[in-house]
Amino acid sequence: MANSPSGDSMTQRIVRVLETFTTERTVQTASEIGRRADLPSSTAHRLVDDLVVEGLLERDDEHRVRLGMRLWELALRGSSALRLRQAALPSMERIQARIREHTQLAVLEHDSALFLERLSHPDAGANITRIAGRLPLHASSAGLVLLAYADEELRERALAAPLVALSPETVTDAAALRRILAGVRRSGFVVSPGSVETVSTGVAVPVRDETGAVVAALAVVLPRETAPEVAITELLRAARDVRAALSGR
Amino acid sequence: MANSPSGDSMTQRIVRVLETFTTERTVQTASEIGRRADLPSSTAHRLVDDLVVEGLLERDDEHRVRLGMRLWELALRGSSALRLRQAALPSMERIQARIREHTQLAVLEHDSALFLERLSHPDAGANITRIAGRLPLHASSAGLVLLAYADEELRERALAAPLVALSPETVTDAAALRRILAGVRRSGFVVSPGSVETVSTGVAVPVRDETGAVVAALAVVLPRETAPEVAITELLRAARDVRAALSGR
Repeated sequence: MANSPSGDSMTQRIVRVLETFTTERTVQTASEIGRRADLPSSTAHRLVDDLVVEGLLERDDEHRVRLGMRLWELALRGSSALRLRQAALPSMERIQARIREHTQLAVLEHDSALFLERLSHPDAGANITRIAGRLPLHASSAGLVLLAYADEELRERALAAPLVALSPETVTDAAALRRILAGVRRSGFVVSPGSVETVSTGVAVPVRDETGAVVAALAVVLPRETAPEVAITELLRAARDVRAALSGR
Repeated sequence: MANSPSGDSMTQRIVRVLETFTTERTVQTASEIGRRADLPSSTAHRLVDDLVVEGLLERDDEHRVRLGMRLWELALRGSSALRLRQAALPSMERIQARIREHTQLAVLEHDSALFLERLSHPDAGANITRIAGRLPLHASSAGLVLLAYADEELRERALAAPLVALSPETVTDAAALRRILAGVRRSGFVVSPGSVETVSTGVAVPVRDETGAVVAALAVVLPRETAPEVAITELLRAARDVRAALSGR
């Protein structure tokens, strides 16, 4: 509806504007947004004005634009991301109290692992994950868990796509990944040494909802030299607790 | 741009659709959305289709619609809400470890206190605050802090508006509120017994950014019988730490 001559919907244009904001780029001018969103300058300026009026974007005294608190509120208020994160947070805090590294929660979203939460100890080791950031399914421990329990069509599509190496140790061979995924389904966890960064090991387990469906992955990132056994035990217990929380028990 | 015959922009219509989702109402049909957003049924169905295509909404097997993970990602990725929350979280966790009740972070947004984060102990007392929920500025302890340091125009507007009582003890007299706000600016904290719920006391302090501007309020909700002194000390220390974190120190 309300399509432009080029055929893209207004919704699409708004998404293209919002997509120009990233963890690293939080403030832009309307002209920069237009250029990055590939929109004509007049269109970008009018659209940014509309979004500012509605509070989805905010403009400062220097006419620079950032994402609005109103957008944050609308996106979170009724979201399953918030529900899942709230159910998982107490368990994640317990893991953190024990392991004191990084504990994170991810969901499957458009063929990647999207991270909903990350708790990190001040003295924890390396970890490139960010909240609202993504990692490839085949490379991250959370992603491998999500991929292992995804439906077969998605799994085959992911394995047929170009498998990028994030580190020299990322497994990028589809047959080897199939064996790893079968192992995850047998054991109920994965240990991925060095697949995101050489210096760290990811450990992850599936989180199931009240129906038994896998809705998320819970992961711990450890320094490479740390044995994963305690993390596995803590994660499996936490996954049971999150399931109970999601069931309202 | 792309205005409808009734003069509302497409952005406005999208906001009206997103506004129909709340903490209590997370799943709806397109027809329900249309009715609640006051949009013609055909318009609502087309707009929901567009939003589903872009991932801002998600549709389940029973054709019911919920907020999409993609919306969550776009709203958070470059947001100052996330930056503020990340800077505050370690301090909030330290307060929680000490006080073991509720610790929360709020910002001023369109004349209310919008809550960005809430940590709660399993055995904590009553607290109606929700993440992405709002409370009136004059009634909540976080709101009083935000109001005390807001610019004068906003403060006078808020005090001139109808002052709703959330509990029998909510202060709704503008002159009494002016005295309370002057007290907050002198002491640097507020203690509000019973103003949101008779059974609890809110304690809040301002959080300043690297420039010294008040950007948020940090609050603890205590059972009414608990003395506020330890909470005040913890909150003041936490506010200093958050400011340091925001300054990148």
